[in-house]
Amino acid sequence: MSAPAGSPARVSRVAVLGTGLIGGSIGLALAKHDIEVVGFDASAACLERARELGAVSKTASDVAGAVRDADVVVVAVPVGHIAPLAAEALAAGAPVVTDVGSVKGPVVADVVAAQPGRDACFVGGHPMAGSEQDGVDGADADLFVGATWVLTPTARTDPDAFTTVRSLVGLVGADAIAVEPERHDSLVALVSHVPQLAASTLMDVASRGGDEHRTLMRLAAGGFRDMTRIAAGHPGIWPDILSANRDAVLRALDDYVDALASVRALVAGGGRDDLLDLLERARRARRSLPVGTPPVEELAELRIPVADRPGAIAEVTTLAGRLGINVYDFEIAHSGEGGSGVIVLVVAMAGAEELEHGLAEIGYHVSRGALG
Amino acid sequence: MSAPAGSPARVSRVAVLGTGLIGGSIGLALAKHDIEVVGFDASAACLERARELGAVSKTASDVAGAVRDADVVVVAVPVGHIAPLAAEALAAGAPVVTDVGSVKGPVVADVVAAQPGRDACFVGGHPMAGSEQDGVDGADADLFVGATWVLTPTARTDPDAFTTVRSLVGLVGADAIAVEPERHDSLVALVSHVPQLAASTLMDVASRGGDEHRTLMRLAAGGFRDMTRIAAGHPGIWPDILSANRDAVLRALDDYVDALASVRALVAGGGRDDLLDLLERARRARRSLPVGTPPVEELAELRIPVADRPGAIAEVTTLAGRLGINVYDFEIAHSGEGGSGVIVLVVAMAGAEELEHGLAEIGYHVSRGALG
Repeated sequence: MSAPAGSPARVSRVAVLGTGLIGGSIGLALAKHDIEVVGFDASAACLERARELGAVSKTASDVAGAVRDADVVVVAVPVGHIAPLAAEALAAGAPVVTDVGSVKGPVVADVVAAQPGRDACFVGGHPMAGSEQDGVDGADADLFVGATWVLTPTARTDPDAFTTVRSLVGLVGADAIAVEPERHDSLVALVSHVPQLAASTLMDVASRGGDEHRTLMRLAAGGFRDMTRIAAGHPGIWPDILSANRDAVLRALDDYVDALASVRALVAGGGRDDLLDLLERARRARRSLPVGTPPVEELAELRIPVADRPGAIAEVTTLAGRLGINVYDFEIAHSGEGGSGVIVLVVAMAGAEELEHGLAEIGYHVSRGALG
Repeated sequence: MSAPAGSPARVSRVAVLGTGLIGGSIGLALAKHDIEVVGFDASAACLERARELGAVSKTASDVAGAVRDADVVVVAVPVGHIAPLAAEALAAGAPVVTDVGSVKGPVVADVVAAQPGRDACFVGGHPMAGSEQDGVDGADADLFVGATWVLTPTARTDPDAFTTVRSLVGLVGADAIAVEPERHDSLVALVSHVPQLAASTLMDVASRGGDEHRTLMRLAAGGFRDMTRIAAGHPGIWPDILSANRDAVLRALDDYVDALASVRALVAGGGRDDLLDLLERARRARRSLPVGTPPVEELAELRIPVADRPGAIAEVTTLAGRLGINVYDFEIAHSGEGGSGVIVLVVAMAGAEELEHGLAEIGYHVSRGALG
């Protein structure tokens, strides 16, 4: 392949707006590839600390200064502040802008509303990685290695902008997956936002009462420690996230509480077999959580001509996302106006056939080859 | 001190009834101290496998054979089978019997009912350690190192029996804490049984739906993985545990669901400050979970004369448990009839004064010295 993801060919200068834990970690990861990272932060002290730590190689005193000459701009601020800052970066001429917010539907919609002419160059993103640490002092160049990083292209997304952001994700060591913005929000409600509430609530219930609490904490073994680990994280980000994703969070929370009510009935009624069924089902699901990357001989390359088909990037990549198929590499060959060209995807051989069929169903003609 | 906990002086031969994950791990840990471990298991194949793995040095074909000449008998079978087996061991002449069941109130009551003459020699136990593994092949000599191991002495407990079991716990590397049987059951409902149900239920809710599920699993980052880790454990033990501890589990589950309902109201109503308060409280509690053992210069020795005071062992040790004060070492000097003698406790200096005051309040005269 001529330009594998992870190649720095298209990315030599990155602007990071917001140099906290996530922005700082991105900066540190990019620094390993000799990419120039220009930082901007509303807090001069935070920005200076990021420079000291090597998370940014240059600092800028405003958004326009940071954006100037950057190949891609990463907005790494709390959810409520993303859209205005992304719009400002686009207005200042940034060729490609992405973000790292935990909620995507409202953010993408707000960017479209604020910059309807240039929103095609905005690609929403969300790295599924975090830390109990707080601020740039907790930044880690390896924070994203092996993590899943959601991108949310839409039918309006410019293919080159997507490719650039996809490369950036590869550079920091993460695996990109494409999902529609609203669907992302439903999924993370269930897999991230409700788990955070569930963990913090459990920790809070367990910690009620003085003496009782201390004994209880002595009895807290590995399972309880695992379950409540995310409760140790910095809470400041959560009110914004929960507010922005309120409807999806409430739906997922209701599903969880309903399921707990069913479990309560089984415990109260002595429903042994049904309890065992539930625990066995959960065990199988937990054990099937995906880990790692397959060896190259288990990968397949799909070539998908997309000449003159608008929105092809979003269609193809979000279909892979919907099927849960990891795209290990991504490229657009002979990319041109309106997304014409050939999309080259590298996926696990096990999922290649299913993706081919899915693509054929929505009108794509796919050719397949093996790698390695 | 003349006989520190962990000294094998009083324990040279142990019978393990039930050679699965926990029984096998105890056997492996004791083997490191050259203690003879005689195993019995209802499954001949499981017993033979334990011998092959070195978890038992000898096998017995029945309970009486295993118990003969043992200094202490450990019953390591599912909760529903503990009391009959413990009673059988006592009837066969075992000097001291303990168990490792996750529920203590009903077990202790059943042993008293079955062996009212000899129940003083039964000390309930519950190691707060486990594994996703299953069976003796998952046994690990280090499973209990640094873990908290609850003992549930009562006013009827023989002090020497308690000391022997306390030594055994030290030998496998765990820290003993004494708690009343019923109180143990309330606490583990909150810190172990409900977390298990909460994790398995969350995993089950997240895994509903085919394609949706697969994408969701790709998005499952560290927090979700941590929270659902215990859902990967073997479910076979749970119906018994939940049945034996039903009332306490239902109370704790109701508390948890009520708290989640309050959180839902905050999310729905945009209660930012209250949400932040909850998350901040939970964060502080999670960060204060105790870890590790203090250095010897931070330890204090409390000497507590208990001449002719029945039930002193249970009173003193469960008070320490109630105050959340870890007893790092324990000894009875000049032990005699009815518990007369001096109880020597080694505790963290930080908690020594509080324990002294608590003991004074219930009529004990304590003298204190430093160690190291």
